Amino acid sequence: MNILVINAGSSSLKYQLLNPDSGVLLAKGLCERIGIDGKFTYKPQAEGKEVLKAVDVAMPTHSEAIQAVLNALVDPKNGVVGSMKEIDAVGHRVVHGGEAFAGSVLITDEVMKALEDCIPLAPLHNPANITGINACTAVMGKEVPQVAVFDTAFHQTMPPKAYMYALPHAYYEKDKVRRYGFHGTSHKYVSTRAAAMLGKKPEEVKLISCHLGNGSSVAAVDGGKSVDTSMGFTPLAGVPMGTRSGDVDAGILQYLMNKYGMDIDQMLDVLNKKSGVEGLSGVSSDFRDLENAAEEGNELAILARDKFAYEVKKYVGAYAAAMGGVDAIIFTAGVGENDGGIRTAICQGLEFMGVKMDPATAGIRGEEAVLSAPDSSVKVLLIPTNEELMIAMDTAAIASGK
Amino acid sequence: MNILVINAGSSSLKYQLLNPDSGVLLAKGLCERIGIDGKFTYKPQAEGKEVLKAVDVAMPTHSEAIQAVLNALVDPKNGVVGSMKEIDAVGHRVVHGGEAFAGSVLITDEVMKALEDCIPLAPLHNPANITGINACTAVMGKEVPQVAVFDTAFHQTMPPKAYMYALPHAYYEKDKVRRYGFHGTSHKYVSTRAAAMLGKKPEEVKLISCHLGNGSSVAAVDGGKSVDTSMGFTPLAGVPMGTRSGDVDAGILQYLMNKYGMDIDQMLDVLNKKSGVEGLSGVSSDFRDLENAAEEGNELAILARDKFAYEVKKYVGAYAAAMGGVDAIIFTAGVGENDGGIRTAICQGLEFMGVKMDPATAGIRGEEAVLSAPDSSVKVLLIPTNEELMIAMDTAAIASGK
Repeated sequence: MNILVINAGSSSLKYQLLNPDSGVLLAKGLCERIGIDGKFTYKPQAEGKEVLKAVDVAMPTHSEAIQAVLNALVDPKNGVVGSMKEIDAVGHRVVHGGEAFAGSVLITDEVMKALEDCIPLAPLHNPANITGINACTAVMGKEVPQVAVFDTAFHQTMPPKAYMYALPHAYYEKDKVRRYGFHGTSHKYVSTRAAAMLGKKPEEVKLISCHLGNGSSVAAVDGGKSVDTSMGFTPLAGVPMGTRSGDVDAGILQYLMNKYGMDIDQMLDVLNKKSGVEGLSGVSSDFRDLENAAEEGNELAILARDKFAYEVKKYVGAYAAAMGGVDAIIFTAGVGENDGGIRTAICQGLEFMGVKMDPATAGIRGEEAVLSAPDSSVKVLLIPTNEELMIAMDTAAIASGK
Repeated sequence: MNILVINAGSSSLKYQLLNPDSGVLLAKGLCERIGIDGKFTYKPQAEGKEVLKAVDVAMPTHSEAIQAVLNALVDPKNGVVGSMKEIDAVGHRVVHGGEAFAGSVLITDEVMKALEDCIPLAPLHNPANITGINACTAVMGKEVPQVAVFDTAFHQTMPPKAYMYALPHAYYEKDKVRRYGFHGTSHKYVSTRAAAMLGKKPEEVKLISCHLGNGSSVAAVDGGKSVDTSMGFTPLAGVPMGTRSGDVDAGILQYLMNKYGMDIDQMLDVLNKKSGVEGLSGVSSDFRDLENAAEEGNELAILARDKFAYEVKKYVGAYAAAMGGVDAIIFTAGVGENDGGIRTAICQGLEFMGVKMDPATAGIRGEEAVLSAPDSSVKVLLIPTNEELMIAMDTAAIASGK
């Protein structure tokens, strides 16, 4: 079974063709500058097949982008499947499922309506995701099953004490203001893998999943279910990120907006795009740049890394308290998979709760590994995330009626 | 040595006359409706002296209020001291000391200038505090030493990773946006008492101080020094409070302001005055009312209490992680001193980090007590706060040149 995984943005579209049973990746790539001049990238994962890198392909809309993807996949010379019939289903990453979706779902007219209803909650992302689904339907027809896999769905198991804010209750009832959380597909994937690495069933373990990348979030996963997560109503909240502030005192917004005559959209632009480790350091949003600058003695780069690790560490402590303990801490995504210095800084001082790192593991990058010492009662795991594989697995299960 | 402790608001003034060596309270009271119609309350703490309750006294300004206080204290019949000479110094509660004050300070012309500089950081509170100091100087003269004791000072020992936000660095350099923290006088008092109860020096212990009242904050106190606290740039941040939201995703402000056409001052008014456990429950900001409603089965009152305890619990876990462990958890202030149900809910499930409550202590109110079981490796302490005594102690030490 081959699943086409689509992650559609407003002017871009990432894709992978995967076999979810074997986990084999057949091809992946990217359509960029859709609606502008159109650039197409195609990377078949087989010897002798030609790679295309940002070649000019006219893509006035997402439909031409999808058509370009399909053309490449079934191309007699450089394709990876014989025909469209070998693409069994399409899995779409959808950012926001609101409270309507607690799991992945076969796309129907009713589901499309519900996705439209979620647009106010994700005004930048959901319209692009919807456009991607419509483009696939237009090009591939209604016969190929399509499945929506939501960034928010995994966190729908949170209890009210975790998802409710201490705000006037009408903002929840009427306006749907609550913690949704994001990166759910990643947290679900790595927490499932973690249980397997521990030789336990997901229901038996308490996990803290640290998805640390350009966007970062921490999730508390108890018995296979998300019970809390650091992102909130939007992906701005939680730990500091590349350019996002993470948690800040709302009083700061009032002070700065009144002082500088900013409106709330300008203020949020600063918090989303000019803050985080880049804003604090003045160096970069990229943790590798920060590491290099820190090694050269740049004090603000050192502070930005310290701050990031410190805030993640506090979430780890908070979620251990929330769950009444923890069996394993997971590191994943760009920073989590590659930055041993950050991992060490996060886990330092957690001996009181049974965490003991193996210093020899600090250099491990991008592969599943146990990072804790053999006598650590809490295991620390490195698990490369694979959101596309998780989407493909969910899509296959739903498309085949499992 | 007798110290007059003053807490001046914009139209009110609380006072106590205390002996900081013995801890004996001689009298306390309140001036209300200053600048309006003037109401004076006086409670001498001695047998046979007459109590005054909200009696009419003309108070066009804070000066007449201070004069009324002094008249009452030295009154031949109902006073508690023989003359003004027996009032050795005045200690003023000042809300915001910015980065200028890391401790209490003798008030001089330079200090008054620095307090003025802090007004933008506390535009409601600092002007009232300054008015109170000026009124004392006008009535008592410059000979009586006056000391400023700041809500923020105790937290000035926080490291940059705790006090810096992940915002553009200029907001700190130029605008002084950082975490200041509040309730410092209370956290300092109870953490000093906690070390004494543990039979240790403050330098030897890691403490988490939970000041839970109508306003609430949690502080991590390592070796006698505050290293982190839940309130931030303003007293809005941290755990939910009576009517304050505590931490919220800044994205919520953008969503609600744009949806309802609110400006940032209106939004902050909602977050400060219509949120917290009152907003969430729709019942009350008072935890006793919530407890009663919860007992009658009101689900939102139960949720508000659950939410409050859950957020405090997460800060306890976070600060244990921040300090690399904890020796004792302190409960203080109205809710912390009286609400055994909340204390139990906070500590439940913290056995993994060595906390074991003694269930027999749930009913203890308002007195120093050990709440943890004898075999709990982390002690849980009930310590009634006494900010006035702490102010008097600091004032006495500085006024006598210690």
